[in-house]
Amino acid sequence: MKTNPGNYFEDFALGQLIEHATPRTITAGDVALYVALTGSRFALGSAEPFAHSLGFAESPVDDWLVFHMVFGKTVPDVSLNAVANLGYAAGRFLAPTYVGDTVSATSEVIGLKENSNGETGTVYVRSIGQNQLGERVLDYVRWVMVRKRDKASPAPEPALPSLPDAVPVEALAIPDGLVLAAYDDARAGSPWRWGDYAAGEKIDHVDGMTIEEAEHQLATRLYQNTAKVHFNQFEQGQGRFGRRLIYGGHVISLTRALSFNGLGNAFKIAALNGGRHVAPCFAGDTVYAWSEVVAAEPVPGRTDLGALRLRTYGIKNRAATDFPGRIDGGYDPAVILELDYWVLMPR
Amino acid sequence: MKTNPGNYFEDFALGQLIEHATPRTITAGDVALYVALTGSRFALGSAEPFAHSLGFAESPVDDWLVFHMVFGKTVPDVSLNAVANLGYAAGRFLAPTYVGDTVSATSEVIGLKENSNGETGTVYVRSIGQNQLGERVLDYVRWVMVRKRDKASPAPEPALPSLPDAVPVEALAIPDGLVLAAYDDARAGSPWRWGDYAAGEKIDHVDGMTIEEAEHQLATRLYQNTAKVHFNQFEQGQGRFGRRLIYGGHVISLTRALSFNGLGNAFKIAALNGGRHVAPCFAGDTVYAWSEVVAAEPVPGRTDLGALRLRTYGIKNRAATDFPGRIDGGYDPAVILELDYWVLMPR
Amino acid sequence: MKTNPGNYFEDFALGQLIEHATPRTITAGDVALYVALTGSRFALGSAEPFAHSLGFAESPVDDWLVFHMVFGKTVPDVSLNAVANLGYAAGRFLAPTYVGDTVSATSEVIGLKENSNGETGTVYVRSIGQNQLGERVLDYVRWVMVRKRDKASPAPEPALPSLPDAVPVEALAIPDGLVLAAYDDARAGSPWRWGDYAAGEKIDHVDGMTIEEAEHQLATRLYQNTAKVHFNQFEQGQGRFGRRLIYGGHVISLTRALSFNGLGNAFKIAALNGGRHVAPCFAGDTVYAWSEVVAAEPVPGRTDLGALRLRTYGIKNRAATDFPGRIDGGYDPAVILELDYWVLMPR
Repeated sequence: MKTNPGNYFEDFALGQLIEHATPRTITAGDVALYVALTGSRFALGSAEPFAHSLGFAESPVDDWLVFHMVFGKTVPDVSLNAVANLGYAAGRFLAPTYVGDTVSATSEVIGLKENSNGETGTVYVRSIGQNQLGERVLDYVRWVMVRKRDKASPAPEPALPSLPDAVPVEALAIPDGLVLAAYDDARAGSPWRWGDYAAGEKIDHVDGMTIEEAEHQLATRLYQNTAKVHFNQFEQGQGRFGRRLIYGGHVISLTRALSFNGLGNAFKIAALNGGRHVAPCFAGDTVYAWSEVVAAEPVPGRTDLGALRLRTYGIKNRAATDFPGRIDGGYDPAVILELDYWVLMPR
Repeated sequence: MKTNPGNYFEDFALGQLIEHATPRTITAGDVALYVALTGSRFALGSAEPFAHSLGFAESPVDDWLVFHMVFGKTVPDVSLNAVANLGYAAGRFLAPTYVGDTVSATSEVIGLKENSNGETGTVYVRSIGQNQLGERVLDYVRWVMVRKRDKASPAPEPALPSLPDAVPVEALAIPDGLVLAAYDDARAGSPWRWGDYAAGEKIDHVDGMTIEEAEHQLATRLYQNTAKVHFNQFEQGQGRFGRRLIYGGHVISLTRALSFNGLGNAFKIAALNGGRHVAPCFAGDTVYAWSEVVAAEPVPGRTDLGALRLRTYGIKNRAATDFPGRIDGGYDPAVILELDYWVLMPR
Repeated sequence: MKTNPGNYFEDFALGQLIEHATPRTITAGDVALYVALTGSRFALGSAEPFAHSLGFAESPVDDWLVFHMVFGKTVPDVSLNAVANLGYAAGRFLAPTYVGDTVSATSEVIGLKENSNGETGTVYVRSIGQNQLGERVLDYVRWVMVRKRDKASPAPEPALPSLPDAVPVEALAIPDGLVLAAYDDARAGSPWRWGDYAAGEKIDHVDGMTIEEAEHQLATRLYQNTAKVHFNQFEQGQGRFGRRLIYGGHVISLTRALSFNGLGNAFKIAALNGGRHVAPCFAGDTVYAWSEVVAAEPVPGRTDLGALRLRTYGIKNRAATDFPGRIDGGYDPAVILELDYWVLMPR
């Protein structure tokens, strides 16, 4: 068998290091496609002169685009036999990525726990994205439920990693040389700066975006993410949903793009505290988003920069006017994504 | 409210200057997507050596792509609450845009007239696209019908701008250093030069192109055009048409691409004299095009270059063999676009 | 008539040379779109450092992308009035193409034979793709069945070119400066090298990819291929299939991308021995692929490099587990493509 069967639960061992295939040079073509696929309007990624005005040598590649590229690499080894992508934690966006940089990915298995049914288990990995200079551009923990090859295989010693509820604001990576003195609100498209937001504030991002099959397939292939559920209608048509599933990361990117309307100065994602793909999203669904400000923290050592911890909800097929979110220990049925993350904003 | 509600008719004042958000660096990725979305085959934008042979340092970005980028910037401020995009005039394509250039947009309110129903009014703006050097790459007038926030608001003094029927041939911008001595008809794909066209001539561009939802959404997001009607099926499904509307500019681009078949040497758009989106276009529609030569004028001071004033019609779901256009003061029901513009052609 | 009616059978003469229009500079945008449209994961085209490690100055453009660009140029002159694309032979992938290179195409008519019905004839052309330096990047023979303009036209003297069953391994072009000492299997994504494959071996590539209308239209327009059958639903809806036909080259590219799973180290296409688009493919179809190793030959003069002659089958709407292919002198009804080609692989 020369084809990749993916790893089953038994194939993972605590401390195991996986070097993922297919390093990826990110180009201006990838960036343009990302704009076409999401409609992102954040000025830092859109305009070189805006990036220069903030001290960047050029526009950095969108943080979520880098995330998807790294994530995509991990799929053939980590989640080809996954039943579910359960969660994210401790994600940090580190060195900026520029057009021409090459991103590669490795993962370490940091937790394992067989489920009581003996058919699946949860695998925790810390995935790391590096550039061609060996600089870390991203790391994050995710955990997935993976099938066992054989129910009779013995269960490993359970090992659960200790994961923070959120990345502390002190641990956020601030881009080298970032200056905000010349930050231009008019060009950025929002008059609202960090000081205008307060913990507890809720923002309806108003707009909705309908997803087409071609769009999520283009996005997911662009990231070289090979998860079968996104691409094969012949097989999915016979499955549980009868439909192709949309890569959860595409929903993350859409909510980020939609969040421009209300968070236009959130110029950079700094950390991924947690996230959950609450319900599946299918072609034809219209995605809306709203955000709650969980915390508004100054960035230590900077008077010009603040951080907002946001919890953004992706909502489908209804407006987010009334902020549908958690209810009764579960979620409003319209919720498809809950994402907890830090953004940077000028003060 | 931190989200952009858009401007209502009352928010516009004569002489008002609007600096639009989200400057945009145009990349090779944008250009490739534009080809993939339209099928454009004009050699000047397709091949660097062809551009060099005409005296360009490199291939200029397609004129309509630049137009859409500039237009997209104006939407959040000018037409978010527009009922209709009524017309264009006095548009000039000025300094060429190259990959790596950053386009930004400003608009001036040059006319205002409340409608007699007291619910809407017409706003005239002159929008200007500039590059990172402050050079003007494009300007044009458009007028839109915008909702009033409050019917009771007093009407402004009516002020209508004086607009030319067409940009005079003397006012067309000819690219610096343009030389046509080495213009290669075979490489360009057409044996027909300026002298082969005559006023009154009609050209059926023969081919048809069916538009998919994913295509017009990709195009419109690429331009960072945020008009809701193009993207939100959940909302549009409950509206007048029950469908997402296709950005009129996408239809302009398709007719331009289709016009290659018959106008292959029309290497550059020089001016936009006027235009009307006569009827809506929806996904699944097949767009055809035909053109009438309104005028064929020599370009003053050049023996190698001529200009054609064209009126191109976008037609849907029928061939353009019999040139469907204006009838009885209106239009044939198949007409979706009437566009009056100047192109440059070698003599 | 200023529009291109295409050539009819009578318009072709033995020895005729055709210079095709619209040279094409290939950019990073084209490469990104190709990844998004196909999901290609071969490391040579994905990562600059991987390309460097093999002795390339930068990542070469995917071989099939170059092929489609060249092929697209030939359509308006060769196959606009084609009834069927009958076959390929003697195709060689020569000098690598890099981002920024400009590809142009010429064809020579090397065979003509009128069909006995007097309504059509077969035209054989050798098409050549060249870069801006005049280096040959690709050549191949294809033959198409073309309509006669007038049944009464006299038949030309039949002339059939002598075509090899396959390009001999000695004739494969090996990229200048190719070194494989540092070839990294882990980064490439496959542990299987040339020596692990044997003639007669069959490989099911496992994965399936469903094609959307927007996807094949984007691909085909990207290649500036103007064949009407791919784009015009209004016309095709009234035709034989009632559907738009998917460009056969898109199916070739999908099978190549799918073949990564099992042939991940087949880093380069070296030759196209033959090919047949056995049955049409439509949007909504799910494409699978499997390959048979026809021959495994060492590359003369190299101890580090081998060649595999592959016969890859594109299959639709069923898995390829049981290797559906030729049966009873015809094909299994699920087969849409049979492609015979050489790939290079490290030993």
